[in-house]
Amino acid sequence: MSVLIVGSTALDSIKTPKSANPRLLGGSASHAAMAASFFGPVNLVGVVGDDFPRRYIQLYERHGIDLEGLQRVPGKTFHWSGEYESNMNNRRTLLTELGVFETFTPTLPAAYQRTPFVLLANIAPALQHHVLDQMRRPRFVAADTMDLWLKVALPDLLRLVKRLDAFVLNDSEAQMLTGEDNVFVALKKIHRLGPTYVVVKQGSHGSILSSPRGLFICPAYPLPKVVDPTGAGDSFVGGMIGYLAAAKGPIDDHIRPAMIYGSVVASFCCEGFGLQRTTKVTRAQINQRVKELERLTRF
Amino acid sequence: MSVLIVGSTALDSIKTPKSANPRLLGGSASHAAMAASFFGPVNLVGVVGDDFPRRYIQLYERHGIDLEGLQRVPGKTFHWSGEYESNMNNRRTLLTELGVFETFTPTLPAAYQRTPFVLLANIAPALQHHVLDQMRRPRFVAADTMDLWLKVALPDLLRLVKRLDAFVLNDSEAQMLTGEDNVFVALKKIHRLGPTYVVVKQGSHGSILSSPRGLFICPAYPLPKVVDPTGAGDSFVGGMIGYLAAAKGPIDDHIRPAMIYGSVVASFCCEGFGLQRTTKVTRAQINQRVKELERLTRF
Repeated sequence: MSVLIVGSTALDSIKTPKSANPRLLGGSASHAAMAASFFGPVNLVGVVGDDFPRRYIQLYERHGIDLEGLQRVPGKTFHWSGEYESNMNNRRTLLTELGVFETFTPTLPAAYQRTPFVLLANIAPALQHHVLDQMRRPRFVAADTMDLWLKVALPDLLRLVKRLDAFVLNDSEAQMLTGEDNVFVALKKIHRLGPTYVVVKQGSHGSILSSPRGLFICPAYPLPKVVDPTGAGDSFVGGMIGYLAAAKGPIDDHIRPAMIYGSVVASFCCEGFGLQRTTKVTRAQINQRVKELERLTRF
Repeated sequence: MSVLIVGSTALDSIKTPKSANPRLLGGSASHAAMAASFFGPVNLVGVVGDDFPRRYIQLYERHGIDLEGLQRVPGKTFHWSGEYESNMNNRRTLLTELGVFETFTPTLPAAYQRTPFVLLANIAPALQHHVLDQMRRPRFVAADTMDLWLKVALPDLLRLVKRLDAFVLNDSEAQMLTGEDNVFVALKKIHRLGPTYVVVKQGSHGSILSSPRGLFICPAYPLPKVVDPTGAGDSFVGGMIGYLAAAKGPIDDHIRPAMIYGSVVASFCCEGFGLQRTTKVTRAQINQRVKELERLTRF
């Protein structure tokens, strides 16, 4: 089945102590859509300006991503610039130019409104609501978020969380949202906000699912070298929903492997700047790492 | 088979924002020995003063721990006092009174010298060497350490590491030792120092084994409440070597479940002050959590 993905479609300029990588394809929706595209059809909802490189459009297309929902409008594409320290753990934002993103209203093409799986990738909760308002009885709705929305749009976000099947956030956001250091207590508190599935991402330590069938501890794929972690969280959730949409039967039967696949796609994401590595990976390479993760965790 | 465990045998006074817990049974060897005792016979090597409560001697005995190697000498028992912040993550040492530990020389009873499994729990590397010098062809030798020895006794420690089958340390120590942030690169570098098995502990994120059969990602048991993490690392390595000593056949066949059992014993350790919870646990409760961990990681 298809996945609809809404979020930011951006140009990312990523600096490290060793290199500068200007105007890479980035944004939460780009990473999530590319990750989901390994598993089945993706409908992308976003906005880009007239400076958006034609080669990035072609890149989406080569991955079979439907672009009817990608608005192309006059003005500049959302541009984010950030710098990592040498250990790739600490990041600081150098520049955020919203451009055409500032006035973005995600209006869905009619053909998108019945997409069964929906991923509201990181974007303002008001826009996530707006997309959901246009959907007709989706089978499964997941959303990601970021610390910014917890600070500036908490009421919107809390209202959104009630409408979700799955809510995905990282550990520091879970702590900020619940006031709880302990991730297992935080998970319980987040469940009370509405979603059936709560996933807390813990970066290189993997992620934790809380679901009706209990907890699942999902490992990260071991990487001896992290080139650029930008978009890893988006790749994780994109891979996860892509796998779920392609699987047959109840969500509960597939959500654990879906997280493993998401984790593997995120590992590839970290091995190149922007989407450079992800876009060169094959499904066979993904399957290979999933098998490895199985071996690395069996006892 | 038996395990010989040498390390500190201490009295720990542990403060939290909510409680004071004076003079609990503590020390690396106490935690490790108690953890190993669930699986088979343990020979304890340490030193206590004449202020060491009789009830703690009885507690060791009730767990079948052999005390022929526990020196009881005039003077005060090693006393450590520490305070945790409310989230139990940050600890500061309030007081360290070495007492009889200052002049401790771990001389082994003749009966201990052929113990097949040896755990050199956290203690000065010179003393770890001294114990190893007295052993006759042990089958398997593991050691733990702490940041202090990396700072003040690095040459001794590096010489020790060459003599080990397994070296266990936590992530910040691995980073300090190798100058590597990335745990997988650090593991490789530590292998080059000598040991066949290297285990990096990552607290609530579990631990990672690097071995001839590859990596193993060992989860921590999920705890919604951590009462006191003091001794959790010692419990982990004690449980691990206790399980290994009880298992038949090659180490490689058992080291993964051994880590899982260690992880579970460490989880119980965290649920009470000092050894209060660990000493009330049954083997059946340990097996139960191991089964749960299996369910929590299967996909």
